[in-house]
Amino acid sequence: MPREKLLIIGGVAAGMSAASRARRRNPELDITVLEKGQHVSYGACGLPFYISGQVADANELVVYTPEYFREKRNINVRLGVEAKEIDPGRKQVLAVERASQPVAIPYDKLVIATGGVAGGGEIPGSDLPGVFTIGDLAGAIRLREFLDEKKPCRAVIAGTGYIGLEIADALAKRGIEVVMIGKSSQLIEGFEVEICARVEEEFLAHGVRVVNNSSVRMISPGTQGEIHVHHGETSEAAELVLLATGIAPRSAMAEAAGIPLGASGAIRVDDRMQTEVPGIYAAGDCAETRNLVSGKAVYFPLGTTANKQGRVAGENSAGGHARFEGIVGTLGTSAFGLEIARTGLTMTEARSAGFDPASATIRTLSRAKYLGGRPLLATLLWDRPSGRMLGFQVAGEAGAAKRIDAAAVALHARMRISEIQHIDLCYAPGFAPVWEALLVAAGEAIKKSRRD
Amino acid sequence: MPREKLLIIGGVAAGMSAASRARRRNPELDITVLEKGQHVSYGACGLPFYISGQVADANELVVYTPEYFREKRNINVRLGVEAKEIDPGRKQVLAVERASQPVAIPYDKLVIATGGVAGGGEIPGSDLPGVFTIGDLAGAIRLREFLDEKKPCRAVIAGTGYIGLEIADALAKRGIEVVMIGKSSQLIEGFEVEICARVEEEFLAHGVRVVNNSSVRMISPGTQGEIHVHHGETSEAAELVLLATGIAPRSAMAEAAGIPLGASGAIRVDDRMQTEVPGIYAAGDCAETRNLVSGKAVYFPLGTTANKQGRVAGENSAGGHARFEGIVGTLGTSAFGLEIARTGLTMTEARSAGFDPASATIRTLSRAKYLGGRPLLATLLWDRPSGRMLGFQVAGEAGAAKRIDAAAVALHARMRISEIQHIDLCYAPGFAPVWEALLVAAGEAIKKSRRD
Repeated sequence: MPREKLLIIGGVAAGMSAASRARRRNPELDITVLEKGQHVSYGACGLPFYISGQVADANELVVYTPEYFREKRNINVRLGVEAKEIDPGRKQVLAVERASQPVAIPYDKLVIATGGVAGGGEIPGSDLPGVFTIGDLAGAIRLREFLDEKKPCRAVIAGTGYIGLEIADALAKRGIEVVMIGKSSQLIEGFEVEICARVEEEFLAHGVRVVNNSSVRMISPGTQGEIHVHHGETSEAAELVLLATGIAPRSAMAEAAGIPLGASGAIRVDDRMQTEVPGIYAAGDCAETRNLVSGKAVYFPLGTTANKQGRVAGENSAGGHARFEGIVGTLGTSAFGLEIARTGLTMTEARSAGFDPASATIRTLSRAKYLGGRPLLATLLWDRPSGRMLGFQVAGEAGAAKRIDAAAVALHARMRISEIQHIDLCYAPGFAPVWEALLVAAGEAIKKSRRD
Repeated sequence: MPREKLLIIGGVAAGMSAASRARRRNPELDITVLEKGQHVSYGACGLPFYISGQVADANELVVYTPEYFREKRNINVRLGVEAKEIDPGRKQVLAVERASQPVAIPYDKLVIATGGVAGGGEIPGSDLPGVFTIGDLAGAIRLREFLDEKKPCRAVIAGTGYIGLEIADALAKRGIEVVMIGKSSQLIEGFEVEICARVEEEFLAHGVRVVNNSSVRMISPGTQGEIHVHHGETSEAAELVLLATGIAPRSAMAEAAGIPLGASGAIRVDDRMQTEVPGIYAAGDCAETRNLVSGKAVYFPLGTTANKQGRVAGENSAGGHARFEGIVGTLGTSAFGLEIARTGLTMTEARSAGFDPASATIRTLSRAKYLGGRPLLATLLWDRPSGRMLGFQVAGEAGAAKRIDAAAVALHARMRISEIQHIDLCYAPGFAPVWEALLVAAGEAIKKSRRD
């Protein structure tokens, strides 16, 4: 009897997690990973640190090499092989290697882990030299070569999401003057106004110019080698343009194969990471996930979720019964020494999920004042009728972002604000104030809801 | 009609929290605080940082001055007034001021916030010059004067609890050679062996000498001005001795007044911080609290709990209806750059609470390896039959201790290990690994419990 074949399309976070977990579950399985690029299993979230130079060598981002997977885990990693078509009827994937004719690769179980596409490619002129997106390690390597060779002085970043922020920080660390252009009314999307204002303040203080309420329409070459970025009625000249307008799921191949997508455009999956086509799983930035606060299927592509989904897809595609219930919308980042993080829903998301949300913003300290405590800003969101906590957001210096974890657990447990006020969080003057931000915010929320 | 009188005995964390909250609740109340010392409202947890010199001036530890309470909050703070007897029949407290005859101070409601006593005073010779306990700010000021004047080179610390550890760090920062003597088998009590071993390793690496399994029997003066600390069959010579063998509740006055104590010797209270004598509340280091994991009344004196209990006692003694349900046993500290923290029960505590506990210890990183991630050690405890999480402990460098908060919330929510593995904790390479210690430990716990 031939060994059962597990085929995985994509070899970054979700794909390699799936492969590794499947191998652990079933030592007999024939596991093949198709990766169109030349790298697998790297920390994509570390790309900004490679661009800044804080990570000297791209190989440092690689967790395990293809050789490691082949030799130690008996996983057949095929680099430079791009899947072009999924044929669920024949249970095969058509793939090309170095512009060859497509070859058919058969499978018994398939995991789609094709990831996401960095937005901006649709902007006219996005293919000009000096215009980059940060989609994968190869793209980051090209950008760093450009930075090292051309030594640009001025960059425009299109997009003010968390990736835009991280790239701004990375470029500023290299001494590059940065202009950011975003369509939202404040720097950083997905956070409440007080947090956004704090971020914008920090960016301005670090010399970043921020243009809100504007979208990049077109990019055109100048006469002196510069690039013109046209937005609204005006334009900015730069030697480098970064497109970071968001991430879209790479789901077209799945859709073409008749695998249903969700409203978000990402592949629809259940809590076993199964698509609606039997034997086909999806995981990572190409797939949806469930937001456990709103109960809705959402597209919220992040490395940590990709790893979890990948493991579950790997376990189940190898005969297991794992579940991934979903996320609560936790996200954190830092730029210019300011850490920000969120979990749960924003006011806008909460309203569209049918809640009647309210919010309270408080200011406290990172640790005892007498040990140099620094300002910590936090916003708590809750549902008025039920008192259920809906979200939490923080901004502050080192140590601020991980404050979000306690709130994330409270969201998983569907806690009410009245249950949060006296939670026994860790206090010692060297790393916390007596009253943690989450407790202060819950106290403020209770006060506010009594006044309502 | 005369204003209702609220009398509070003790003006540190619990007492002043009670006074402030009562004032907010009832602007008409006549509020008096009796404080036998000369300081109120200071951060007792900051005393080691004052001893080390990191906090230059004792006044930096003071949150609000007596004048502030008098002028801004209309709270009558009486310094140097020591309560000697509570007379619940006459509703009065007998107190002395500067060796005066006792005067009767009447009350309608009473809050007892007499705090704890640093252990070691029962050891013969504990009253010798050069022998100190760290009970209050006045004691810390005396110790620092001694350090500044006598410049001791060698200190013995009796007690290896978290206060002993903090003092060892403080003295080592001043260049003093430290010997620690404790009766437990490893440095730091209340943690599992792997964490204890990590702490001991760090202390030894910093030149601290550790004597386990031994108790200080007696202290005697030497002939050259040195002090001899006798323990087991041997003795240590030093110029400074610190007694930090634990904290006992200062509850004798309450007991003498017929207020029932719990088995721990601390004042028994309900979730409104009421004692069993109507109109009398207790809060802080003199009172018990409920451990929500074991369901048992415990003595677990900490500043953060004192603040919460004080608020609730203040609210209720002023006519409110607040509740303090209890703690989950969260405690954190740091010494020599190593942070340690725990929440929940230890194996021993879990067994004596009737659980059938198991534990799993894992090693992971504080953040991405390519951004200098440092080792993080964690132990998860759970109940075998139910799979309920019972505790979590961590040790690692900066940022490690606050990792405990997510676990503390999970304990409040009575989560099972199966519910913890995929919690949506915050990831970014600058401050977290993809798989947080708590998630890795839960995964390991699940694996172990399947093998059982």
